[in-house]
Order: sequence, then structure tokens, then C-alpha cells
Amino acid sequence: MGLIVQKYGGTSVGDPERIRRVAGRLLRTQHEGHQVIAVVSAMAGVTDNLLKLARQVSDAPSEREMDVLLATGEQTTIALMAMAIEAMGGRAASLTGAQAGIATDGAHTRARIANITPDEVRRMLQRGNIVIVAGFQGQSRDGRITTLGRGGSDLTAIAMAAAVRADLCQIFTDVDGVFTCDPRVVPSAVKIPEISYDEMLEMASSGSKVMQSRSVEFAKKFGVRFEVRNSMNDNPGTLVLEEQPGMESVVIRGVSLERNQAKVTLRDVPDTPGVASEVFTAVAAAGIVIDVIVQNVSARDTTDISFTLSALDLPKAEAALAPVIAGFGGDTRMTTQAGIAKLSVVGIGMRSHSGVAARMFAALAAARINIQMISTSEIKVAVTVEETQVEEAARVVHKAFGLDGR
Amino acid sequence: MGLIVQKYGGTSVGDPERIRRVAGRLLRTQHEGHQVIAVVSAMAGVTDNLLKLARQVSDAPSEREMDVLLATGEQTTIALMAMAIEAMGGRAASLTGAQAGIATDGAHTRARIANITPDEVRRMLQRGNIVIVAGFQGQSRDGRITTLGRGGSDLTAIAMAAAVRADLCQIFTDVDGVFTCDPRVVPSAVKIPEISYDEMLEMASSGSKVMQSRSVEFAKKFGVRFEVRNSMNDNPGTLVLEEQPGMESVVIRGVSLERNQAKVTLRDVPDTPGVASEVFTAVAAAGIVIDVIVQNVSARDTTDISFTLSALDLPKAEAALAPVIAGFGGDTRMTTQAGIAKLSVVGIGMRSHSGVAARMFAALAAARINIQMISTSEIKVAVTVEETQVEEAARVVHKAFGLDGR
Repeated sequence: MGLIVQKYGGTSVGDPERIRRVAGRLLRTQHEGHQVIAVVSAMAGVTDNLLKLARQVSDAPSEREMDVLLATGEQTTIALMAMAIEAMGGRAASLTGAQAGIATDGAHTRARIANITPDEVRRMLQRGNIVIVAGFQGQSRDGRITTLGRGGSDLTAIAMAAAVRADLCQIFTDVDGVFTCDPRVVPSAVKIPEISYDEMLEMASSGSKVMQSRSVEFAKKFGVRFEVRNSMNDNPGTLVLEEQPGMESVVIRGVSLERNQAKVTLRDVPDTPGVASEVFTAVAAAGIVIDVIVQNVSARDTTDISFTLSALDLPKAEAALAPVIAGFGGDTRMTTQAGIAKLSVVGIGMRSHSGVAARMFAALAAARINIQMISTSEIKVAVTVEETQVEEAARVVHKAFGLDGR
Repeated sequence: MGLIVQKYGGTSVGDPERIRRVAGRLLRTQHEGHQVIAVVSAMAGVTDNLLKLARQVSDAPSEREMDVLLATGEQTTIALMAMAIEAMGGRAASLTGAQAGIATDGAHTRARIANITPDEVRRMLQRGNIVIVAGFQGQSRDGRITTLGRGGSDLTAIAMAAAVRADLCQIFTDVDGVFTCDPRVVPSAVKIPEISYDEMLEMASSGSKVMQSRSVEFAKKFGVRFEVRNSMNDNPGTLVLEEQPGMESVVIRGVSLERNQAKVTLRDVPDTPGVASEVFTAVAAAGIVIDVIVQNVSARDTTDISFTLSALDLPKAEAALAPVIAGFGGDTRMTTQAGIAKLSVVGIGMRSHSGVAARMFAALAAARINIQMISTSEIKVAVTVEETQVEEAARVVHKAFGLDGR
């Protein structure tokens, strides 16, 4: 008998029929002998409707009141889920984030979980209930309703699993798990049975958006073992856990791609201390998230800096950097290019195997795909290529590392 | 400078445009120099949608979870109202029932307010906010969300006004106030500027459903002076307050009618102690609310008992009474009649004026309207008549007491 946390996203609880299906799965899990906590999101579409209402009463609704509004979405789901379980003869108790003891800071719409006091959750479990917790929401120290921002329900599930020391946390979603590459791009991609936190983080930050990085980071920090699996079938999913012996025998866990990227290059930047800081401070101040940064060794007294970002942010970046460049007063020029994509290979095995980058570059060269930028971490090699070539690039790299249809 | 509680029902906040209009009114009240607490209901239609969802997941949703579900309705309104006020440049803070300190018993879907601890409300007022409180909801001692049942938002407003010692509580609705009779029936009916709690209670229980009796009773108990007025215009409404000197000079405050009534008569009931108790215990156990009861003086060793009830409950009453009558074993027979209506005249002035009943009966007789049953209280005389005649009855009685177009 174990204690299991299951998380269901907005699509999985998108209508009454699906809520009943999830209720059935929760009861089945309980009947297998487990104590069950379910963390649920707002029904798909509900949040959009609430946002629409907010826009009709205010051009710039305050984040504090937005949280009060949006929190009704999950509250609706927890009540309906509990009713559905009871209608099937089960026992259930619903808890809002506040009732479940989820304390956050006061940063409305993007609050961080400060701590969880799961006394009420435990009490309800002990009475034989399936406990239904509203994801995505909590309560600040001064008693205000807060929400956790994007990926918040995953975070609620992982954090609750840590707080109650659950044996397993299952993140139910609309895919079967984490794949060696996007199966729409690489048809021979296969589901990864087990993946380490670090690999999952690199896959996430490289475009495989099964989960937000913050939830994986939280799980890693507190050692919460979790499984990503499909709410529409009974297939086993992908288990995400601390690094296991033998994991390194697989050199590359997967290939990840991210499209709609753009590149900004600043040529002939003065090679003096503080210049890079000035550039990236201006970009950050404009609220732009950047990804790969490459700075070439300076040949003269100037250097070249390139970085990638979402193509959507390109105009904002150009506007933010124009005054900075003017301030340099010299020959610095900015060139930009949209229509690029990033391809990454990820695997903790590369730490103990040399030649990963070489094998990747060779595969790309053989396919006559030009590499624009290169960036590496301890367990990742990433390159940017023309967006038109990224699918072909993914296929040849996937094959080169022996990932095809294991 | 005063402290004012304003309550707005579901129709008054039925869409974003109406929410903005209410927000404007709240700000105007604040700009007149008052501290303002607004109690709001769920937007019209929202509750029905939630009930529909509940029925789609369960045939018999638990009342506990129903409260969790329904409470989202007011929570949506408080957030939107606060946003609308802020969009107009005002300061607002929204509070759920629990956050506003509204403690109830644990009777889900029909909870009673145990007490209100308005600390947070006061704190928010002191910071210059218009405080928006979710009506209809509270929190039980064990931290569960509860709702107050029908008329719950009115009750929240009255109780909050009592707790913060408000100078005035204004109940905004879709009528201009309490009228001497329903203007659709008696076109010459006029709005009553002031009415005592007791008169208001008798009017409410006699079919003038501007407000539920429980809210009026609460206001009377705690001496909360309140005004019923129209959210769509600026007309003064009806002030409901303790009895004032001079009120008795008006003999009759108003005429009230209630349709869709039915009458049950039990003839030749054994005239022994405990028989009436047996009859009405059976009716109460079936969940039927009865109104007028009349028992005639017994002529022999049997008696006749009649009572009225909603016509909708008639089949239930017949089923509940059949075994009781069989148990009497004698000649008792039950006859029933639907299609009757009740007409009442109400006024604290009748305490000091004799002849009210006589004047009423004379007016009805002159119009050839037959009186079926008569029932009186200290400040009310009620009769039942054929439903087809009740409008004519209301007009002649209204005129007989000089209520026409004062």
C-alpha cells in the first residue's frame, strides 16, 4: 500500500465525461490498495473565458484580483471531481489550495510555494477519502488567494508529493511520456522509460515542453520521483528520477528541437569589461528571455556577440539594443536573423563518453546541414540551424546516436 | 461620513456592462464621503450553469461539494467587481465569505451564520478600499466552504451591516422598493417609503417576495436598518426599520397576494388530543411547508381541519396523509382543492384600529368574492379566495383601505 499523487491537466478534465473517466481512474488506483491525492487543473477553456470576462471590465486588471478570479477555475474542477467519485460510490473530499495548506509568497499570478502544511490532506486521507486538491493556487501569508503561473498544477502535484512523502507522483497529460524526439518529426522516436532529472531539465529547456522546468527542478531538489503518462490510456509512461547506476551506458537520452528562434549578432563590440553586461541588462529589462549566447574570441580590440531568442521577441530586442549600440559610439553593427531553430542532444552518458559533439557534427555535415552556433552544457550539445533544415537534422542525429526504434 | 453596506443581486451584476455600472455606483457612494462595503451575488445564470455541470457528473451531488462548486459563482463576481472599480481609478479589495470572517454552522447548502469577525473587512476599509464581499457563502468551523441557501446574499449584507455597525444597509434589486400591492395587479399601488420589520415580515410571508423572511428577521433581531432600492435608477427605495411613532396612523401598510395555493380539508377527524399533531407531523416529515391552518369548533365528537400549501406540494401531502387517515379508522375523509390564492392586508396600525377585518370582508362581499378561509395575526388579516378572483379582490381591498395612489 502506497501513497500516490496524480495530477490531471485541463484537457484531461475538459468536460463532464472526461471528469468521470478520471474519477474512475482515481477509484481504480485506490482499489489497488493505495491512498490517493489528485491535483487537478481548471477545465480546458475555463481560464480563457475568465480572462475574457476580466478584459470586459478592465483594460489592466490587477494581478491580485486576477488570482481571485482564476482560482475559481480549479475550485470548480475539484467539486465536480469529488461529486463524480461519490457518484461512483467512492469517498472524496475537495480542498482549495488554501485549504490544502499550500502557502506561497505574495507574487500574484506567479507565486512561489513557500511551504505546504498537509494536515488537512492527511486527515482527509485517513478517513478513506480520495483527496482532490486544486492545482495552480495557494494562499499568501496575509490570507490572499495566489496562483503559481504557468505549469502551476504540475508544481502543486510535485510539491504536495514532497510534503506528504508520497511514494510516487504521476503527471497525467495528453502524451504517452517523454520521447527520444518529437514523433511528428522523427517517426522512429520511442518513449523513454526512465530519465534523470537533469536530462529532463535539458530536454525541457530545449523545447520538449512536456513539463515546465520549475516543476522538474522542484522535484530534483526534494527527490520526488514522478512519472509522466497519458490520461487517455493505461500505457506506462516515463519515470523521472535521480540518476541511476547504468544510466550513463546510454550516451544520448534524446534529441530535442525548438523552432521559431531568431539570432541577434552584434559585430565589432568594444572588447572592454562591462560591455556584455550592458547588452544583456538592456535585453532583460525589456522582458526578453534569451537562450544560447556565443561570444567569439576577439581578434582585434573588438569582439562579436551572438545570442538566440524567440522570433516573436526580435522587434523588442532590436528596439532595446539600438540605444546601447549607439552608446558604444564606434563601429558596432547589429544584424538579426529569424527563421532559425535549435537542435539539442541530451544525455548524462555524454559525461563519460567523448566524441558526442563530433558524432553530432559529422551526422549534420553528412546531411549537408550548416551549423550556425554551438553551445554545450555538461549533458547537452546544442546547435542552431536554418529552421527549414531542423527536421532533417533531428532525423539524422536521432539515427546517428542509435535512438531509432529501440 | 458613514459606513454603508450595499448588496447587489445576480441580475444587477449579470454581465460585464452591469458590473461596471454597479462599480460606478459604489465609487459614487464612496466619493460622497462614505466607507463602502459591497456584498454581491453570482452573475445571473452562472449558478444554473454550475448546477448543470454538477448534474452531468452526478445524479445526487453531495451538499458539501455543491457548496464548493456554487461558491465559485460569487468569487468570480467579487474579482470582476474589484477589477472594474480599479479600472475606474478606485481602490478595491475582494474577500470571499471565509476571508470576510463569515463563520457558519456545518449545514451545507443552507448554513446559518454563527458569527462574523470583520477584522479583515475593517483593515481593508481603513486602507481606503471599497470592500467587495462574496454573498451567500461562509466557512464552517472545520474550514469547509458553506453556502447560506436562498436569499443568502441578502443575509450576508444584513449580517455584515450588523457586525460592522453600518449606518445603513442598502439592498439593491430590480424593483423600486416595497409597494402597497403588486403594481402588475393593482396599477394604483404606490411605493411605501417606510415600513416596520414586522410589516415587512408579514408582507414577505404573504407573497411579496422582495426579500426572504430570514434576512428581515435577522435585521429585526440586530436592529439593522435597511433600504430596498432599484439598482437601475436613483429613486429612493423603501426603508425597513423598527416601528416608528406615527406608523400606526396608517392602518394598513399594504396588500399582499400569493397564488398557486391549494387547500387540504380533513373532515370528521376524531376530536381527541394528539390528532392534529399526528396530521402535521406527517406533513412536516414529507418536507411540505404549510401556511394557514384552520380548525373549526367541533360540533360532534369529530372536527374539521383545513390547511393551505403550495399547489406543487399537493400530491406529496395526499400521499403523506393517506396512512394517517387510515389510522384514524373512522369516517375521516380528505378533500383537496387547488386553484386558490391568499390575500392579506398588513399593517401595525390595525392593532389600534378595530374593524380592519370587517372593512376587508365588506369590500370583498361588495365585489361578490367568496371568502374560503380566514386567518389573522396581530398585524395581518388573510383570506383565501378562488385564484381567478384574487386580482379583483386585491384591487377592491387596496381601494377600501385608501391605499390607491397616495
